[in-house]
Amino acid sequence: MKNYLVMTKKEMTAELKSLMEEYELEKAKGHKLDMSRGRPDPTQLNLSMGMLEQNPYDLIYTRKGTDVRNYGQLEGIDEARELFADFLGVKAENVFIGGQSSLFLMYDCLIKALVLGVYGGSKPWGQQGPLKFLCPVPGYDRHFRMCQEFGIEMINIPTSPTGPDMELVKQYVESDPSIKGIWCVPKYSNPGGITYSPETVEAFAALKPAADDFRIFWDNAYMAHGFRQNDDYLVNIFDACKKYGSEDMVYEFMSTSKVTFSGAGIAVLAASKNNIDFLLKQIGVQTLGYDKLNQMRHVRFFQNADGIRAHMKKQADYLRPKFDCTLAALDSGLDATGIGRWTRPNGGYFISFDGLPGTAKRCVQLCAEVGVKLTDAGATFPYGIDPEDKNIRIAPSFPSTPELYSSIKIFCLCQRIAALEVLLSREA
Amino acid sequence: MKNYLVMTKKEMTAELKSLMEEYELEKAKGHKLDMSRGRPDPTQLNLSMGMLEQNPYDLIYTRKGTDVRNYGQLEGIDEARELFADFLGVKAENVFIGGQSSLFLMYDCLIKALVLGVYGGSKPWGQQGPLKFLCPVPGYDRHFRMCQEFGIEMINIPTSPTGPDMELVKQYVESDPSIKGIWCVPKYSNPGGITYSPETVEAFAALKPAADDFRIFWDNAYMAHGFRQNDDYLVNIFDACKKYGSEDMVYEFMSTSKVTFSGAGIAVLAASKNNIDFLLKQIGVQTLGYDKLNQMRHVRFFQNADGIRAHMKKQADYLRPKFDCTLAALDSGLDATGIGRWTRPNGGYFISFDGLPGTAKRCVQLCAEVGVKLTDAGATFPYGIDPEDKNIRIAPSFPSTPELYSSIKIFCLCQRIAALEVLLSREA
Repeated sequence: MKNYLVMTKKEMTAELKSLMEEYELEKAKGHKLDMSRGRPDPTQLNLSMGMLEQNPYDLIYTRKGTDVRNYGQLEGIDEARELFADFLGVKAENVFIGGQSSLFLMYDCLIKALVLGVYGGSKPWGQQGPLKFLCPVPGYDRHFRMCQEFGIEMINIPTSPTGPDMELVKQYVESDPSIKGIWCVPKYSNPGGITYSPETVEAFAALKPAADDFRIFWDNAYMAHGFRQNDDYLVNIFDACKKYGSEDMVYEFMSTSKVTFSGAGIAVLAASKNNIDFLLKQIGVQTLGYDKLNQMRHVRFFQNADGIRAHMKKQADYLRPKFDCTLAALDSGLDATGIGRWTRPNGGYFISFDGLPGTAKRCVQLCAEVGVKLTDAGATFPYGIDPEDKNIRIAPSFPSTPELYSSIKIFCLCQRIAALEVLLSREA
Repeated sequence: MKNYLVMTKKEMTAELKSLMEEYELEKAKGHKLDMSRGRPDPTQLNLSMGMLEQNPYDLIYTRKGTDVRNYGQLEGIDEARELFADFLGVKAENVFIGGQSSLFLMYDCLIKALVLGVYGGSKPWGQQGPLKFLCPVPGYDRHFRMCQEFGIEMINIPTSPTGPDMELVKQYVESDPSIKGIWCVPKYSNPGGITYSPETVEAFAALKPAADDFRIFWDNAYMAHGFRQNDDYLVNIFDACKKYGSEDMVYEFMSTSKVTFSGAGIAVLAASKNNIDFLLKQIGVQTLGYDKLNQMRHVRFFQNADGIRAHMKKQADYLRPKFDCTLAALDSGLDATGIGRWTRPNGGYFISFDGLPGTAKRCVQLCAEVGVKLTDAGATFPYGIDPEDKNIRIAPSFPSTPELYSSIKIFCLCQRIAALEVLLSREA
């Protein structure tokens, strides 16, 4: 394989012709492969079946004697709050357990902020005219969709391997009171797989927002999802905030969607006592309590934070080969061509791929036509608009290893075609 | 016991003195009784333990082969939609399964209407200036609290044994576009235990709202909760609506909170295809799906609508004696006095008690001081204000039968004291 960037026009034309022949052969195979979403594989889900096999009579009573089958315990059962407090490095009083997914909790916090306001804010966000959120890119499409749904303007913030451009973040947040929040996936980010450096976390904690009701949406979805020997290190943002007295600025989210069951996990919000108390008053109007039996299932299954970590090691053993396979296929399929760069994360669910500008949409389309489904090009940017049309999120978790290898082989083929088309069009 | 209403002042004074002596004796006993909320009793909850004892491997796959442990099936699994469609008398496509409580779903529908609007509406409710809801009284405090939280003005609608005053409802709804909804508990209402007559349901279906985005919040929480031989008959509101083409006007809610587990049930919304499709688009921004494992647990446990009905017969056998005990204690403690009227429901969770005007708060306070906790006086009215201060909600489900008997005995004593105080103050 040759570096495409130094090929002559003639070489490129010949290469494209040969690739198109290969592509037609793949098309004829009738593939049906899906790398579009970060879904756990059934085998991964099986790792948590023990949680469901517990004797249900062991799950009924909390240590205080509360019957989890009945109403109450709005904030979550003590045992669950303690488990996740331990895991997140906060106090139990700073933990709220609610609902089945953290996405859901984020939505809830967002819509409540709009209609009812947040702790310390002078009035609800929705009564303050046009609102803005900062969006480190590439990022998580479902964060962006929420802002879009609520008509919140999104501003792209470039991201480097240490995290978002904090000078830019500071400049925006400290000058513009209409900026109400920022979306962060601080560890093994979606899709980049990067982890914010201690300096980045410190810079977040040190922010002095122009708005009195600004919130950092700290979506720590993958904090437990390291799959290599060396786990990335993320500073506990609440520890960093202590120095600045800025704890009220942070909502931290996590869930067990990718720890136990994506379809039946529990979600966790960690926040300052002020925020938790304020939110509980709002949540108390909404429900008499979330599913406590499922909280108890998780508590009894994991026992403590080490239990979660041990469980995640099993998941790691399962995910690592999938990432290794994907990376190997990318290396052999593209490395020499010089037409793409991709992340090599130590954890999380995704690989972020940057091709030549103007290739992402075309590559996703080419893949789709051969039966390989990828996340939509542009999805990793607000409004689905990747300004350079080059980023693609690769989700290796769900396909089996053979499927994965086939999928990435096809992906590389399509990238090469798309790159050659772009390079040739430049020549024209 | 004598009729208090025909007593002389002297007789009343003597009676009050004797009752106060009795009251002091009760006080000394240090009671700790709670009739404040409609909580199921542990024995009732035990009836559903079979749901948790199912082999978890039997719960994983839907008949289409979908793995319920993974993401997806936003609208609920087919089997669950069919089960509750069958039970509610609608089509599966008209059913959405989401979350752990119907209160939660109502809140969600309400806040989404405010921020995002409803199907057929020209803009979100929240962008239309002051809003109003009609509130049949006495009613469910948690409905009213939601309106209060969102600053929606509430208008009391008197209720008779056939349902809300439909002439008044029609007059409001058809003349005022700022009226966006009405709260209804159409069967075994909370707290009255009444069931809307066929004429009432028909009148609802026939409404021609001034607002293009008016919704009936049809909280059918107790539809399965008849506990006598003769179950009340409620017309299926969607059947009634067909005649008028008004199906889009209704959101019907139910849950299994008082069928299986109050702390771990599933919630159901039935609505027109237009409403369901519109809501699913909104819900798709919020979550990737609700807890499908719990849906499957319910499906496999009940099998079909008859399964739910058979299960509810067991609950009925359990609740009926509690209501009978409560009614007997009320009869013997108050009937002759002429100072109160109470409902004799065929189902549901509550008895609604009307004392003499000006006695409810005093009675609840007297009860509290002897250690008998009741729902706050006024709670059954918007803003917690009972204009006549006479209604008290009695919730007989949670206490054991001996506790119940003691509680009602004390309740009668306190009612008599409060009534005599009021009657004597009239004399003064």
